[in-house]
Amino acid sequence: MTSDLSQYTLGYDIPALPGMKLDDVQTPALIVDLDAFDHNLLKMRDEIAKYGVRHRAHCKMHKSAEVAKLQIERGNACGVCCQKASEAEALARTGLADIMVSNEVCDPYKIDRLAQLPKLGARILVCTDNLANIADLSQAAVKHATQLEVLVELDCGGARCGVADSAAVLELATAIIAAANLRFAGIQSYQGAAQHAYDYADRKALLDTAITITKDAVDLLESKEIHCDIVGGAGTGSYPFEAASGVFNELQCGSYLFMDADYRKVKDKDGKHLPAFEHALFLLTSIMSTDIDGQAVCDAGLKAHSIDSGLPTVFERPDLQSLDYSDEHGVLKDPQNSLKINDKIKLVPGHCDPTCNLHDWYVGVRDGVVETLWQVTARGKFY
Amino acid sequence: MTSDLSQYTLGYDIPALPGMKLDDVQTPALIVDLDAFDHNLLKMRDEIAKYGVRHRAHCKMHKSAEVAKLQIERGNACGVCCQKASEAEALARTGLADIMVSNEVCDPYKIDRLAQLPKLGARILVCTDNLANIADLSQAAVKHATQLEVLVELDCGGARCGVADSAAVLELATAIIAAANLRFAGIQSYQGAAQHAYDYADRKALLDTAITITKDAVDLLESKEIHCDIVGGAGTGSYPFEAASGVFNELQCGSYLFMDADYRKVKDKDGKHLPAFEHALFLLTSIMSTDIDGQAVCDAGLKAHSIDSGLPTVFERPDLQSLDYSDEHGVLKDPQNSLKINDKIKLVPGHCDPTCNLHDWYVGVRDGVVETLWQVTARGKFY
Repeated sequence: MTSDLSQYTLGYDIPALPGMKLDDVQTPALIVDLDAFDHNLLKMRDEIAKYGVRHRAHCKMHKSAEVAKLQIERGNACGVCCQKASEAEALARTGLADIMVSNEVCDPYKIDRLAQLPKLGARILVCTDNLANIADLSQAAVKHATQLEVLVELDCGGARCGVADSAAVLELATAIIAAANLRFAGIQSYQGAAQHAYDYADRKALLDTAITITKDAVDLLESKEIHCDIVGGAGTGSYPFEAASGVFNELQCGSYLFMDADYRKVKDKDGKHLPAFEHALFLLTSIMSTDIDGQAVCDAGLKAHSIDSGLPTVFERPDLQSLDYSDEHGVLKDPQNSLKINDKIKLVPGHCDPTCNLHDWYVGVRDGVVETLWQVTARGKFY
Repeated sequence: MTSDLSQYTLGYDIPALPGMKLDDVQTPALIVDLDAFDHNLLKMRDEIAKYGVRHRAHCKMHKSAEVAKLQIERGNACGVCCQKASEAEALARTGLADIMVSNEVCDPYKIDRLAQLPKLGARILVCTDNLANIADLSQAAVKHATQLEVLVELDCGGARCGVADSAAVLELATAIIAAANLRFAGIQSYQGAAQHAYDYADRKALLDTAITITKDAVDLLESKEIHCDIVGGAGTGSYPFEAASGVFNELQCGSYLFMDADYRKVKDKDGKHLPAFEHALFLLTSIMSTDIDGQAVCDAGLKAHSIDSGLPTVFERPDLQSLDYSDEHGVLKDPQNSLKINDKIKLVPGHCDPTCNLHDWYVGVRDGVVETLWQVTARGKFY
């Protein structure tokens, strides 16, 4: 399934080749610890199965069709989510068959492309939060003689997109049902702000509210005999709440698979990390200068990882600390001057989503040897 | 010179086609105002010529061979800088003939690739700050029967890479001169921290120190009859100091060409912006949700621009303000509820370098019409 690597130049297009030792990987490179990856993949499969709900894996995190297929085949996901029309197209082109854009698509040209994707054999779902958009989606689906499934996005506390209340959900659901070539698929109710509420009680309060708002909308629709195939939302930080709510039936976790330094801060009610997902994603970086006492400079800067959610931690090296990152450099505090030029270290990115988006490849490593490369299929697909 | 656009799909691979109106560009997209671009290009040409020094345009900012060629042909740059071996390779493959890696290259495989680049017809320069690296560079150049030109990087106050003092510069320069297939090219002395010291007096103090340190090293080398072909450094924030120093002879400005929100804060001694560079780079984004009173949501998030140096400003719309950015969304304060779905606005990115690195294309616009597309040639070339 991996793309043909022979067409690429090592160290120019690709960071590694299968069979290479980790120490020979060209840096900076995103590496995936395949043992930790497998652990996370199966752990989430079992977690969600326990609640009797579905998992729709969120691909906006990794943007890789190869990873998505593993989430479906081995992780028992029912389908995938993404955030953009061009991402959906990139995934549909690889044969993925059940793709939700968990976001609004409003531009006429984007809507037109989206409406063509069912021709590739995929069930295509999209969210909406306004009436004019429903008319545009319908018109495009009619034009291309396809069907789009549409969810109403409800603002359950995130204060970003989404309609404000149950009455508005009913109004839009009714319009979707009435529109040609659209099918009403349910409610999208994602509390993004709750994902990174580190404290359990804070998170619970946000989710209690979100679940109440969502239940109210579902109940109003049911009272009008409008059934929600999907009541979707949740993420790595919050999913136990949605899973146990009796309201949500499809969860959209993404970051659990790789984990990042920020998600490591989210604690359960006992003050422990949420059910033991491991760091599987690392930014491998090489030391390139050690001229200053007590510090070392590595080759991973702002073009190799995103610091919007905080600086990366140094994996299993409590003696080292991120001090500062510029475009192509990272400055590490190394009080014992333990690092030498060309030493490699593993950074745990602060925020996996925008970090993965910077790279073209994941290097899958097991026991210190490169086992596979996965392409970041939808990198650059942000239209 | 633009790549053949017919092989790409609009809205999937590329954001626009020449001849399109700005309102039809697929968002989020990086657009370049070609009038402002021309102004900046010629302004820097004239600024630097006034001091009688050379300009080596820094391509790490834009990563585009097409832009680099305009800087040489119309902006009178003597050559280009970049920061990585793979970037140098990407530029050399397009025929650029004078390429400095203004950074250390330490990994053996990267050194090997770098040493092959002169075969493409390019003068290749690289920096060093340690003796072992000089031996490695020499060995690779001998292996490939090429010549690398090597500058000693001096830490003139940035506390990142670079040797500490003149004695160390002399030691490394002597080693370069003695090494087979290397040529000593001079001193690299870049004060990165000074570029964003907004206050003139703060910046002057940092540069006074940097220039003194650099002059001391040049003088020591001259006393040993070692001539520096290049005494290089400077950036958009500091170049008037280096240009007037009588010590530096080659300046490495980059951001002046596009400008970003952070560089807009740098003031001259009269409290005005440095010599009138204009915002030429914008992130075009579309409004996708207006359900919440007093705010609007746009389609440009952390995957479309970098917020490490602060949130973007909204160009020529003082009534709008950046509130928050998540992976694919931006929330704008819009107190008058003036924005409607599918309205387009221009954001001025906080930091141009890591923002450009996220995109594959620049859309060059004049008078509201797309005139050209420039490829971000070296995107992903961070090895």
